[in-house]
Amino acid sequence: MTQKEKNPWQNFFHPRSVAVVGASRDPQKWGFTLLFNILKGGYKGRVFPVNPREKEILGLPVYANLAQIPAPVDLAILVVPPAGILPVIQDCGKNEVKAGIVITAGFGESGPRGKAREREMTAIAESFGMRLMGPNCQGIVSTEGASLYAHMPPQFPPSGPVGIVSQSGNLATSFITAGEAIGIGFSRIISSGNEADLQTTDFLEALAEDPGTEVILSYLEGVRDGRKFLEKTKEASGKKPFIIVKAGQTEAGVKAAFSHTGALSGSDALFEALFAQAGAIRAETIEEAIDISAALISQPLPKGRRVGVVTLGGGWGVLAADYCAKAGLIVEDLSSEMIKALNEVLPPWWNRLNPVDMVAGYRKGDLITTLELFLKSDRFHGVLMLGLGWRTVRGNLLITDARSPEDKMTAAGRDWVKEEKKIFAEVQELGRRYAKPILLASDVIRNVPSLAESVRARRVAAYPTLRRAVKAYWGLVKRSEIVEGFEGKKEKA
Amino acid sequence: MTQKEKNPWQNFFHPRSVAVVGASRDPQKWGFTLLFNILKGGYKGRVFPVNPREKEILGLPVYANLAQIPAPVDLAILVVPPAGILPVIQDCGKNEVKAGIVITAGFGESGPRGKAREREMTAIAESFGMRLMGPNCQGIVSTEGASLYAHMPPQFPPSGPVGIVSQSGNLATSFITAGEAIGIGFSRIISSGNEADLQTTDFLEALAEDPGTEVILSYLEGVRDGRKFLEKTKEASGKKPFIIVKAGQTEAGVKAAFSHTGALSGSDALFEALFAQAGAIRAETIEEAIDISAALISQPLPKGRRVGVVTLGGGWGVLAADYCAKAGLIVEDLSSEMIKALNEVLPPWWNRLNPVDMVAGYRKGDLITTLELFLKSDRFHGVLMLGLGWRTVRGNLLITDARSPEDKMTAAGRDWVKEEKKIFAEVQELGRRYAKPILLASDVIRNVPSLAESVRARRVAAYPTLRRAVKAYWGLVKRSEIVEGFEGKKEKA
Repeated sequence: MTQKEKNPWQNFFHPRSVAVVGASRDPQKWGFTLLFNILKGGYKGRVFPVNPREKEILGLPVYANLAQIPAPVDLAILVVPPAGILPVIQDCGKNEVKAGIVITAGFGESGPRGKAREREMTAIAESFGMRLMGPNCQGIVSTEGASLYAHMPPQFPPSGPVGIVSQSGNLATSFITAGEAIGIGFSRIISSGNEADLQTTDFLEALAEDPGTEVILSYLEGVRDGRKFLEKTKEASGKKPFIIVKAGQTEAGVKAAFSHTGALSGSDALFEALFAQAGAIRAETIEEAIDISAALISQPLPKGRRVGVVTLGGGWGVLAADYCAKAGLIVEDLSSEMIKALNEVLPPWWNRLNPVDMVAGYRKGDLITTLELFLKSDRFHGVLMLGLGWRTVRGNLLITDARSPEDKMTAAGRDWVKEEKKIFAEVQELGRRYAKPILLASDVIRNVPSLAESVRARRVAAYPTLRRAVKAYWGLVKRSEIVEGFEGKKEKA
Repeated sequence: MTQKEKNPWQNFFHPRSVAVVGASRDPQKWGFTLLFNILKGGYKGRVFPVNPREKEILGLPVYANLAQIPAPVDLAILVVPPAGILPVIQDCGKNEVKAGIVITAGFGESGPRGKAREREMTAIAESFGMRLMGPNCQGIVSTEGASLYAHMPPQFPPSGPVGIVSQSGNLATSFITAGEAIGIGFSRIISSGNEADLQTTDFLEALAEDPGTEVILSYLEGVRDGRKFLEKTKEASGKKPFIIVKAGQTEAGVKAAFSHTGALSGSDALFEALFAQAGAIRAETIEEAIDISAALISQPLPKGRRVGVVTLGGGWGVLAADYCAKAGLIVEDLSSEMIKALNEVLPPWWNRLNPVDMVAGYRKGDLITTLELFLKSDRFHGVLMLGLGWRTVRGNLLITDARSPEDKMTAAGRDWVKEEKKIFAEVQELGRRYAKPILLASDVIRNVPSLAESVRARRVAAYPTLRRAVKAYWGLVKRSEIVEGFEGKKEKA
């Protein structure tokens, strides 16, 4: 048995070579875009454009058909019109191509004739032991190792631990842009399209086994086999956090989903129950799924729902307290010991409450001391910290506008920026030391020095709005409770 | 009667001169920041720093007290410590300063002693006919005419038609950053603080009369006089859209609000009823309030809840349909006439459904024709359009990476960018012609050429996520129904 047969995903995730069948010289065509994106993404294997009418595209020699390619092809990416797909699949089979991605639309989603062609295509592939992704899909991204950006939108996200399987290519696109905005990267991005052969459940299984993937996200319109989906979701969730955005929550959504991928979404209440049973986390939007991922890949899981809130502004604390309570988090009261301890740190008029409002506590170090009291306390399982970033904004403004050395504006500005950088580093250090999550939220969090590096190094989860931070924190709690559930069952067994 | 007495708001919104009492040379102090921001913001009146121990700050001559200022002072901004406030207010009164903003904290929110001082301060001001904003507030921004940025955070938002009154300075800050991110500007930003004298209701009344303000937003923790609040809200909502973010929805939020501004938030259900009765629109987050404002200042009101969705990607349409239905919007079915008309435009395999998925309809002009069919139809009151921006991304990439003229990449790229720009201009033109709202949503909407100018010219409301667009559309519908309610009552009367 060869390595390829042992792990069929190798051909999709780490192909040593890809053929682009239907490659085009015309920059307006998908067959150009796909080849262009693969080259632009710096794919590490060999690329073979296939087109009987061309000699050269984008500097690469073009082959008339698969038989003429002078090396084995691990993955064939098919950008041929529906009417021409059957002979090409035959050709793949004869030339021992074991994995194919059919990008083109106009199959099952376009009516009975397309559906019949889709079935025939799958049957031919099956007869050769070939597996298919698509049709009607955006393609695949496989960053780590392969650097394969074989998909339609010109997106080249950094490598990272988040894997995606999406029944919509457009929403795979949305996952990527939301990830880029918050600074996280991806391992695999799979747009499963019509799922003529390989289905969400198969990719879910593959991502659950994939060592480069730590968190799995999915956009789902419907499933063909509910029992199998439950089983595979349960298995995947037992290994890694699995977050689902499920469409078809309403009649309007159900209709639209059916017309989009022909998916029967089924009763939303049924799916809700299924997700609960399987240990999947349901997110309402793409952004929320990405936000929860950012927390999961960077923070330890909280051991309960009691959360401390430390804020650099009163109003932020008030709204965050509301959002926390509405999400089922417990904004626990401070113990009398903790109030006593904080009395030593904060000015006499501090608010003696969770959220602790640091508004007047400007003295250096107070913020970190306060955070540490929350982390030390058994009463709290994690912390939300609100408002970081403004010292840097203010500081940079002073530095930029300094008039003369006597004004001391540069010195004051530098001091503010430096202090914030220090606070930020200490927050991360504290989180690690106490193994409790700390999530940050601020309108200007992006301005904190070295935030981007820290996000890339996965030590920080930082959000531009209060509610996004609270929802992400809710995701951490949810995952913690799912893991507890799984462990509870293990203990019983 | 002088102009000032006729309109006391003149002193707050268009002061001809301001005194900064407690101005400081020390860049670490609020008394510096405030003066600095006023100068940086390009205030059009005269500025008089007051500090008995300084001669010059930031290039301006400093006055030992108000009496020495050689011109009338319209507005005094007070950055003096609580312990020193009473003689300063006396001084203001004696020197005929009729408007004051007390920035400093440490009054009513800090305990009984601060509360007593706050009362005394207000009584003194009242005896001189002086009105006070604050204490414990962030200050005021009054862009149009005055260019007065007399507030703490270094934010200088552009002038625009949105007015804000916020019981939290931090959340006024959040309103500004959210507005900047989406491209809208502000008329007045008022942080009302402890509301020792002037309250939210007073500012609400002022903004309702203010010709520069078209939409009013408020962050509210509590009100002192429920009946007055109802009355003023009703009055304001009768004139302009009024959007409220109300804190204290949960026990945790109520506690936090009380500790923040001493506000008794009261029962949330009661407020909900009050807002409904008064015709206020309640938003869940700061961002949502800003998003609704962006729609209100740029789009006509829809005459009903039936919405057409046109999408450049299937998945986006599916999720948007769900969000619409959950928000109470009606994703109405297409009439057979409209299906027939679209059959003439779209390829044979189009989805025959609302949302109309344009995925395969690449031919130039199809998108605009489709939009126009929705706008022409009595069946639909407005449109959501999803996915604009990707042609520009793709086009720019081609232009940037063009290898040689023979590749035709530059030509194709330019064509795509040009086409999107044309579509974008036509969308705006259509919206005007049919007087129906069109809201845009796309991950990359910011990339559309001339988007920023169009936002500034208030012809466009564009959102980076589907859900934000749907929530903003909901706000338009809500306002439309409120206006209808008011008009219905007028007719009866």
